[in-house]
Amino acid sequence: MPPRPSSKVPQGTPRTSPQTDTREEVSAVLGRIRGLESEMAEVIRQMQEKVQQLEYLNDFSSLLNSTLETAVVREKALEATCRLLRCETASLYLVDEKRAELYWETALGEVGKRLQKSVRLPIDDRSIAGYVAMTGESLVVNDVENDSRHFKKTRAAHPGPGESGPSFLARTMICAPLRVKGKTIGVLQALNKLPSVPPRSSLHPWPDFYDEDKRLLDTLSHQVAIAVENSRLYSDIKKNFFETCEALAEAIEQKDRYTGGHTKRVVFYSMAIAEEMALPPEQLETLRLAAILHDVGKIGIEDSILKKQAQLNDAEWKVMQNHPKMGYDIMSRVEGLREVIVGMRYHHERWDGGGYPQGLRGPEIPLIARIISVADTYDAMVSTRPYRKGLDPSYARQEILKHAGTQFDPSAVQAFDRAFSAGRLGKGSRADG
Amino acid sequence: MPPRPSSKVPQGTPRTSPQTDTREEVSAVLGRIRGLESEMAEVIRQMQEKVQQLEYLNDFSSLLNSTLETAVVREKALEATCRLLRCETASLYLVDEKRAELYWETALGEVGKRLQKSVRLPIDDRSIAGYVAMTGESLVVNDVENDSRHFKKTRAAHPGPGESGPSFLARTMICAPLRVKGKTIGVLQALNKLPSVPPRSSLHPWPDFYDEDKRLLDTLSHQVAIAVENSRLYSDIKKNFFETCEALAEAIEQKDRYTGGHTKRVVFYSMAIAEEMALPPEQLETLRLAAILHDVGKIGIEDSILKKQAQLNDAEWKVMQNHPKMGYDIMSRVEGLREVIVGMRYHHERWDGGGYPQGLRGPEIPLIARIISVADTYDAMVSTRPYRKGLDPSYARQEILKHAGTQFDPSAVQAFDRAFSAGRLGKGSRADG
Repeated sequence: MPPRPSSKVPQGTPRTSPQTDTREEVSAVLGRIRGLESEMAEVIRQMQEKVQQLEYLNDFSSLLNSTLETAVVREKALEATCRLLRCETASLYLVDEKRAELYWETALGEVGKRLQKSVRLPIDDRSIAGYVAMTGESLVVNDVENDSRHFKKTRAAHPGPGESGPSFLARTMICAPLRVKGKTIGVLQALNKLPSVPPRSSLHPWPDFYDEDKRLLDTLSHQVAIAVENSRLYSDIKKNFFETCEALAEAIEQKDRYTGGHTKRVVFYSMAIAEEMALPPEQLETLRLAAILHDVGKIGIEDSILKKQAQLNDAEWKVMQNHPKMGYDIMSRVEGLREVIVGMRYHHERWDGGGYPQGLRGPEIPLIARIISVADTYDAMVSTRPYRKGLDPSYARQEILKHAGTQFDPSAVQAFDRAFSAGRLGKGSRADG
Repeated sequence: MPPRPSSKVPQGTPRTSPQTDTREEVSAVLGRIRGLESEMAEVIRQMQEKVQQLEYLNDFSSLLNSTLETAVVREKALEATCRLLRCETASLYLVDEKRAELYWETALGEVGKRLQKSVRLPIDDRSIAGYVAMTGESLVVNDVENDSRHFKKTRAAHPGPGESGPSFLARTMICAPLRVKGKTIGVLQALNKLPSVPPRSSLHPWPDFYDEDKRLLDTLSHQVAIAVENSRLYSDIKKNFFETCEALAEAIEQKDRYTGGHTKRVVFYSMAIAEEMALPPEQLETLRLAAILHDVGKIGIEDSILKKQAQLNDAEWKVMQNHPKMGYDIMSRVEGLREVIVGMRYHHERWDGGGYPQGLRGPEIPLIARIISVADTYDAMVSTRPYRKGLDPSYARQEILKHAGTQFDPSAVQAFDRAFSAGRLGKGSRADG
């Protein structure tokens, strides 16, 4: 709270006095009023600043928590630090518990596309951030260059957001630990407080950080810690989920006659096609999971058919063709994965309606299933089986193109073709060949 | 922002005048000063209130976002609404998209233990909350009883937090929609604004809600919406994860000679034992997943052994005993599930060191594996196999007790025994028998 004004107007009627006394009195009173006014203006200014900060913090908190994407949370945290602390740049280190180190991830270019783990610091007194992570206490350092803890190596590699190159020099710094549930999970750093007047004098170019700035960063880092932790919990469970599905799907795949790695490759090709089709991130995730799980129905097929070294006869093919339906039967209880499940169920439908299990036609077939169909068929063609060698990728590509509009969705085939041409389908696709 | 004070002190030297004029002048000036003072006090009071509200909102936002447990988020949201809006009670409705309804979950007793879906409202103008969900606009209703939209049926079933019974009467109300990413996901309701003076006059017992209250609830509901959505995303992905594992594990189980439902029962028994041992929530989740996955290694075993209708010979048993290791090999890539995986890997170890695959002994065996071991063995005994009928539950219980300290961890056996006595192991355990 700002201080309450101290001036008090004398109460009651003023005592009678000669005119000069009265004049002096009036003059004194007027002086007081002016004092009161300017005090009031100052109090209001301070409170308005406080209200603005708090309003900003509130908005920031909403903004920060309105995503669970780790990269977005971090970027927003850095922006808010720069804006609220009025500093040149900011950085966010996270604790790597296993290695007892801090690491620093910068989001370069498109958020999340290219995360570069560029700087690692030990958690000890050999760096300012490491010291803060070790002690769990925030710290103001107004002469960074002469601080014995300053980690010189970070300097060159330390481009702030929007900045690049080795020219960056840390002058003043506040570091605050990110703490949740009694644990330090990272360090938030504000660097180089900017002068309030834009033209910087060459003599005193950089103002100091004060305790008030530290308090502000502490509040901010509390919010950032929570958001970082939530996004981490979310991405961890998603990672575990997807990896578990991959592990189980690949264990099921082992039973099949395919050369190993079919599932992995179908996921890879599917994602490449979908990215060419510019599917939104959420649908990419649905596709990824559907591609991972596309063959899990094979678990319901007898080893004698699944592992047969020769080509299957008609009766055996009939059983084999049951696998998308079996996959559906296994997974249909998972209500939250409706779209994943239809992607899996219909990956053997054909654009012309001649596929199985339902004989769906054209756009009736879910887009995800149409993409997996192209990826799955391409991989089946180029893979070597016990009874025949895999086809040449260029030949397989021609086969896919030839069946656009009959077996496959033409737009999925076009996207496949573009991905192939760009060498995005790995070994054998154009860039490699 | 509160209004700036309008009074201005006249500038420059006051003109010379007779004493009476000066006296009047002084008196007028004094009056102005008092006016200025009280204006200032009011401005400061308003700003302080604003600062307090914002500080509370900030703290509340941290609190709200520091958990991803849906039930906790909701409880904190209701507490904050009551405190910030100074109202008697609050409620939170969520949108059930499939049924185009609002539903109201109250956390009774221990948070999250018993969630009762008690009230459902259509999303239309037949209720105030439904109307707000339909329009997406917040609404103040200061005469609820006479509002044509008031949903009478909710009244009886509408105990606020900490309140119970049908005596509750809604008098005044503000409803704000919970909106995220352009979608209404629920409605937050503040009910019955409390008078600022504690003793309520019988003539005017309930003050109205004003626009300022509405603005406050709008801000609050924005934060609540974000936290509710995050907790929902988190619990949804966890639910999908666990259900997918169950689905795949049960598909793998189908290959086995056990009567169906083995996995489900082992999960059930394991959880009952662990709850008797008062394991913390996080460990309960690890155990649940380990129990779901405990036999997935069987996917690596040939149908000819897995599906054999007679008892296995020694060579076949050797192969069969490989399944915990195979499960480990399949799942070991999932780094985030380290504890789940060891629970699965060691569920055939024995307390006396005579188990497999490693021959671990006593507390070397992870607790989770020791619990699954008891649950798994009990189910194997009471289940009917192609070659023998299942044992009577009471007899199986005696067998488990008999092997405490040799095959089993004695404390896990004790917990099993307590769960059995309490009838918590289902059909055949004491309460049923």
